[in-house]
Amino acid sequence: MLSDIEISRSTPLRPISDVATAIGLHSDEIQTHGQHKAKISLKALKRLENKKTGKLIVVTAITPTPLGEGKTVTAIGLAQGLFKVGQSVMTCIRQPSMGPVFGVKGGAAGGGYSQVAPMEELNLHLTGDIHAVTVAHNLASAAIDARIYHEQRKGYDDFEARTGLSALRIDADSIVWKRVIDHNDRALRKVTVGINDEGKTINGYEREDGFDISAASELMAVLALASDLKDLRQRIGKIVIGYNLEGKAVTTEDLGVAGAMTVSMREAIEPTMMQTLEGIPTLIHAGPFANIAHGNSSIIADNIATKLADFTVTEGGFGSDMGFEKACNIKAQASDKAPDCAVIVATLRGLKANSGLYSLKPGQPIPDSMYEKDSAALEAGFANLKWHIENVTKYDVPAVVAINRFPQDTDEELLQLKNMVEALPYSVEVAICEAFAKGGAGAVELANKVVEQCHNTPTQFTPLYRMDQPLEEKIMAVSEIGYGAASVTLSDKAQSQLAQYKALGFDNLAICMAKTPMSISTDGSVKGAPLQFDVPIRELRLCAGAGFIYALCGNVMTMPGLPDKPAFMNLDIDEDGNITGLS
Amino acid sequence: MLSDIEISRSTPLRPISDVATAIGLHSDEIQTHGQHKAKISLKALKRLENKKTGKLIVVTAITPTPLGEGKTVTAIGLAQGLFKVGQSVMTCIRQPSMGPVFGVKGGAAGGGYSQVAPMEELNLHLTGDIHAVTVAHNLASAAIDARIYHEQRKGYDDFEARTGLSALRIDADSIVWKRVIDHNDRALRKVTVGINDEGKTINGYEREDGFDISAASELMAVLALASDLKDLRQRIGKIVIGYNLEGKAVTTEDLGVAGAMTVSMREAIEPTMMQTLEGIPTLIHAGPFANIAHGNSSIIADNIATKLADFTVTEGGFGSDMGFEKACNIKAQASDKAPDCAVIVATLRGLKANSGLYSLKPGQPIPDSMYEKDSAALEAGFANLKWHIENVTKYDVPAVVAINRFPQDTDEELLQLKNMVEALPYSVEVAICEAFAKGGAGAVELANKVVEQCHNTPTQFTPLYRMDQPLEEKIMAVSEIGYGAASVTLSDKAQSQLAQYKALGFDNLAICMAKTPMSISTDGSVKGAPLQFDVPIRELRLCAGAGFIYALCGNVMTMPGLPDKPAFMNLDIDEDGNITGLS
Repeated sequence: MLSDIEISRSTPLRPISDVATAIGLHSDEIQTHGQHKAKISLKALKRLENKKTGKLIVVTAITPTPLGEGKTVTAIGLAQGLFKVGQSVMTCIRQPSMGPVFGVKGGAAGGGYSQVAPMEELNLHLTGDIHAVTVAHNLASAAIDARIYHEQRKGYDDFEARTGLSALRIDADSIVWKRVIDHNDRALRKVTVGINDEGKTINGYEREDGFDISAASELMAVLALASDLKDLRQRIGKIVIGYNLEGKAVTTEDLGVAGAMTVSMREAIEPTMMQTLEGIPTLIHAGPFANIAHGNSSIIADNIATKLADFTVTEGGFGSDMGFEKACNIKAQASDKAPDCAVIVATLRGLKANSGLYSLKPGQPIPDSMYEKDSAALEAGFANLKWHIENVTKYDVPAVVAINRFPQDTDEELLQLKNMVEALPYSVEVAICEAFAKGGAGAVELANKVVEQCHNTPTQFTPLYRMDQPLEEKIMAVSEIGYGAASVTLSDKAQSQLAQYKALGFDNLAICMAKTPMSISTDGSVKGAPLQFDVPIRELRLCAGAGFIYALCGNVMTMPGLPDKPAFMNLDIDEDGNITGLS
Repeated sequence: MLSDIEISRSTPLRPISDVATAIGLHSDEIQTHGQHKAKISLKALKRLENKKTGKLIVVTAITPTPLGEGKTVTAIGLAQGLFKVGQSVMTCIRQPSMGPVFGVKGGAAGGGYSQVAPMEELNLHLTGDIHAVTVAHNLASAAIDARIYHEQRKGYDDFEARTGLSALRIDADSIVWKRVIDHNDRALRKVTVGINDEGKTINGYEREDGFDISAASELMAVLALASDLKDLRQRIGKIVIGYNLEGKAVTTEDLGVAGAMTVSMREAIEPTMMQTLEGIPTLIHAGPFANIAHGNSSIIADNIATKLADFTVTEGGFGSDMGFEKACNIKAQASDKAPDCAVIVATLRGLKANSGLYSLKPGQPIPDSMYEKDSAALEAGFANLKWHIENVTKYDVPAVVAINRFPQDTDEELLQLKNMVEALPYSVEVAICEAFAKGGAGAVELANKVVEQCHNTPTQFTPLYRMDQPLEEKIMAVSEIGYGAASVTLSDKAQSQLAQYKALGFDNLAICMAKTPMSISTDGSVKGAPLQFDVPIRELRLCAGAGFIYALCGNVMTMPGLPDKPAFMNLDIDEDGNITGLS
């Protein structure tokens, strides 16, 4: 089989303006950026307001191996399959971060015959949304340090007299707004800024700071959750960057920088349209983390797509305990649009990994032995798939299991797995999906099952909590009803933060669990379907603009490092200016 | 009179694809980014290779006040004037940095009726070139710290055994490649990176670093000086980021990151076409500093424009001792295309400031008294204009003085100045220019004089030095022949750097003087036409990718700070999504 990039480059693409108008967009709603990308104006949302809303399919997965189980391939393949069976369809996916492209892998655009193309444009600057987020984020950082510098240097009274502004009296030790950059850059995890030579204060005042990768910015979650430009502006203004000397929250609005941040993101709020290799219109928009944020592409993209197409396929990060939980409890409650069907991607290798009989480490390849026949491991790992099916049904969302076939997989084991799913006492459907090797043709069975589930099963979507419940009840709901944990333990720090956030008026925010994706529990080494476990919450972090508080259960790395032989070493341009070494 | 933004928004613009095809570009050489911006493919250069090359007009100025004397307004107005008198014409200008837009002023797109439009698109993300430079630059930074981290952590032998790469043995104290960000962010001037908690090494190794604003990146100069993608790739690979433990230069090529940096800049190498308010096609490309770099827009943009139009108007930063000197000695020698005419912008206020009778400070408005009639001050300051006229003639480039009229200026004083120029014993021409208030119609006289000078005066362009002269001779040539200095003094540090760079094989690079723009000498407080001064060189810095060594004469600020009431406080979006507060 050809490599991803070979397939991508050898497939003819239609002009993106044709793709966009064919799905029902007007030419004044399309701003092309070259032949293969277009920004879609939010004017389309207003025009289509009264049109019927199509079905929203959320692709999720079992608890994944470090390499992932192929959610993006399945989502793109499913969309291509739906088109093949005569449906009008769009996909909505997240924008990949550039850091990992240069760091540890090639791109993130699906794979095989189920890709978004051209993959080099998707994986590099695209239409600049991540840059706009980065600029807006770091503008707030510059605003924070400049304000403290000028207030401290002039004194609060003189500062007020000279500028006509109220002194914010920010407590420099309380700043929670780090800086961001779209790189894997280990050395920036922890930095000291404002260092002065020889006691001069020309560089500001010294303080500890750090950089996250841009996708970890609260602004990325804000972009994904905003419903329009006005909502974006309001959410940005609510962001809490730290506290003043009296412990009161200080926002970007207080700094007078929220408007300028919105200005930087004024074009980023428009989703970018590209196409799959089979010409399915695809909206690329926002790329929030799936642990410290909610891990789903944007509400605006979904809203546009569901008005244009009868079926919209999107995906949530990691397993159904992560991205799908947040798609239901955070995103759907913000958008008022519930998933009509969940597709749970399962693989033979992923279920065998969930047997606990294999040891897999991030950054290392899957051992060949995992592709060999091993019914016992498959059966042991199946408990994990069963858990994810049950998890989806908790929300009253109909489900289809997509068994994502790898070239090494045997028919016998695939059939064994299919039979196991069919034997379950649920209304779940199952299909083997060969979207990687065959494109949409390999996802026809899956597409038919999804259409069936959408039309036959009346859905009564039920999130695990309502926003007006107290924060601690929301944590309990996700942990105990969601994960099936026996208990939740808040550290002293988390308890005092809980009290603080409630006192500051943030009791009505959503809860976003920041835990390992490698287990349903908070312990990544516990595979399968854990029981009788505790959810220990180390710390809470406020994201008032995004509208959630995230609960840290263990370490989450928000700035990756480069390995000793980074992916960028393969990248170059050839004589004709084409990129080489991207895979 | 209306404000700049009011004029800009009320002027109807043509679709940029029409502007581009009307000047002779083919549709497959144009990638539109929305209605008003287009990337121009370098394919056009190949197609037009054998076409006659048009005239290149470089707009320069007297020694400016901190507010500038209106070079961009004059350049745009002149282009509009040339069009009015029936010439085919284009302009090539630098891309403004976003940092100052948010920091201290509105935009930089000309002004009045001589602007590039839409100014909000020019002044914000444009087509992402600065972001691409920033990404490429910081990728090299991440590569440096990751390489040192892995080599030190594993040990050189183990590193080589594990990766198959040669250990670079970089001396962490010798790194000259700082990080960059496109913000005015004082706190990032000097930082410590790689800080570890409790002695763990997970964040790398601690070292002193700092951030420059992105326009100060060597990559910005590289972009402006490259002739095509291949040349860009080669220049990037030559960049010296520091030295190894044996004192040998370490390049981005050695790090294996030069290819990936080029990949990031693959689209940035294409100039962006916009238009002036009167529809003149304008290429926006690169924005190198005019002190630590050469301060001119790109060779590629000039090369495209001079093949498409009979007249191309461009500008160099600051006075003729800075941007114009570098346009001749650095840019023209790299491009093999000499200026055919220089336009020296002079203002009444600027010449009065050069009398030394007024005290002007950066960041403060021009005192009203400077607009009052003061023949003595004008006469005293005229020495500065005379110096700049003589300076231009040193290169055998014909000159036209453009007296840029301000609304407060009196006819009497303008005429006095014009007469003074006409009385000079040179073949210089002079015209009063009202491009700000009247657009192209206010620059017809100037346009006619420029056409005349281009056609009447045969030019025998002579740079001040040849590249094969030793570095010290080049420094002497610019200082003594160029500035008219009596002597040059190299500090001990500069002398040892000179010896080092010569030993490393960099004797054939150009010299880029990094001095104050506020005086012809290196002392910003010395106005007019200084005599008998010394040029003290504190330090040299190697830019092997750009192809020059810059000589620091005094302090140059490469990371601005935000004032106590930054410009971003005025910026916001209105109900319709329009940007407010940009001026």
